[in-house]
Amino acid sequence: MQRGDGVFETTHVRGGQPWLLDEHLDRMARSAERLDLDVPARPALVELAGQACAAWPADTEGALKIVVTRGPEDTGETTCFATITAVPDSTRKARRDGVKLGTLSLGVAAGTRSAAPWLLGGAKTLSYAMNMACQRWAAAAGLDDVLWVSSDGYLLEAPTATLVWLEHGTLYTVPDSTGILSGTTVRYLLDHVGTLGWHTAKRMVRPTELEGASGVWLTSSVRGIIAVRELDGVKLADPPQTDTLRELLGYPA
Amino acid sequence: MQRGDGVFETTHVRGGQPWLLDEHLDRMARSAERLDLDVPARPALVELAGQACAAWPADTEGALKIVVTRGPEDTGETTCFATITAVPDSTRKARRDGVKLGTLSLGVAAGTRSAAPWLLGGAKTLSYAMNMACQRWAAAAGLDDVLWVSSDGYLLEAPTATLVWLEHGTLYTVPDSTGILSGTTVRYLLDHVGTLGWHTAKRMVRPTELEGASGVWLTSSVRGIIAVRELDGVKLADPPQTDTLRELLGYPA
Repeated sequence: MQRGDGVFETTHVRGGQPWLLDEHLDRMARSAERLDLDVPARPALVELAGQACAAWPADTEGALKIVVTRGPEDTGETTCFATITAVPDSTRKARRDGVKLGTLSLGVAAGTRSAAPWLLGGAKTLSYAMNMACQRWAAAAGLDDVLWVSSDGYLLEAPTATLVWLEHGTLYTVPDSTGILSGTTVRYLLDHVGTLGWHTAKRMVRPTELEGASGVWLTSSVRGIIAVRELDGVKLADPPQTDTLRELLGYPA
Repeated sequence: MQRGDGVFETTHVRGGQPWLLDEHLDRMARSAERLDLDVPARPALVELAGQACAAWPADTEGALKIVVTRGPEDTGETTCFATITAVPDSTRKARRDGVKLGTLSLGVAAGTRSAAPWLLGGAKTLSYAMNMACQRWAAAAGLDDVLWVSSDGYLLEAPTATLVWLEHGTLYTVPDSTGILSGTTVRYLLDHVGTLGWHTAKRMVRPTELEGASGVWLTSSVRGIIAVRELDGVKLADPPQTDTLRELLGYPA
């Protein structure tokens, strides 16, 4: 339990209910499989989530975190719990004003992690020390967050969010083959932007290519969708579609 | 506290006392600095360790784990505790019989991590999910442990141990510039093998080079020193010095 050797999911809570809970629990099951970790049966996890949300006011958004971790150590058992917290003001500010990012190298080539499953790329584990260290690096540099770059120069993901960008009517994200975490929010978004007349696609992208995009955003379960207004000191477009996309995803302002 | 966002140390307990406690607490302080984490003052940590060891029988070896972790979440506080456990029989078997290892790529080049401090190479954090996944990979392959290899083909370290090898009277280990964890046991060993008439040095090494070594070992705080008898299916020398080195380090058989 003290080795980050477990999995977690965070869902947005709206109307007193966890949003996309099934999709999050599907991903948790995939992460747990990578860790050879037994997770409780689906109904038990759904009940746990429901209990955590029961006392939460229906008119207030929240963040529900579900954790399954190995331990107590070496017993073969797992510990499971769910907690719900308020969405911080900084998140609402980011939805409104966007964020400034810098890039940091993740040290691995874009194709490495999908060929090396023991590196746990794509698994949402509790071993987030490096993710947190990168976000502290951002804060110390006066930035809001970072985007990881592969050793061969491709954008990957943020420590706790997925990258999407709009070019000529197509909304792009990064392929899962790069070892990034498969985002639940981005998947919902890609499944629904057809209503805006947009196409969707996945492709590898280098940081400088985003300078020509009509819009660049991060998606994640609690923040929803936030505009990237600056990357490595270069101003990016202020995309007029941010509110439309946020509403499509059902997040408050 | 649930994000592996903390540091830990494990020391060998002998004669009812933690061995090399100062060196371990020095390393913990360096790891904590990398995580921007406040650890309790040294006397408090020494007292915590002493309390954990107080009831442990002086004639039995043990493993003392000291943990400092951020949390409860977002409070800015840290949680600190120490636990002591018995040394498992499998460890004593490994000291006696040695271990079979396989190599696994860590996906990064040997020089990458020392140039990218946000990757936390060399910091002993609680984010050990990948370390544990690699050891499970070893078990599933009928092996005892793994050695990580850089993307450019150099041996780095085991998930919880340091590599040393003997060639022509010189005991080698891997340079810290590769981003490996700086081992406390190996440092003690390198500081004391002069009494055997050996020299010491650090150098990068490729797996196949070890086939010509007079002896290859892993060192770690609980196992002490264990011979590597096989690497990627190739038998290595059965080094006659294993018992001498174990005794030099003060570990029981």
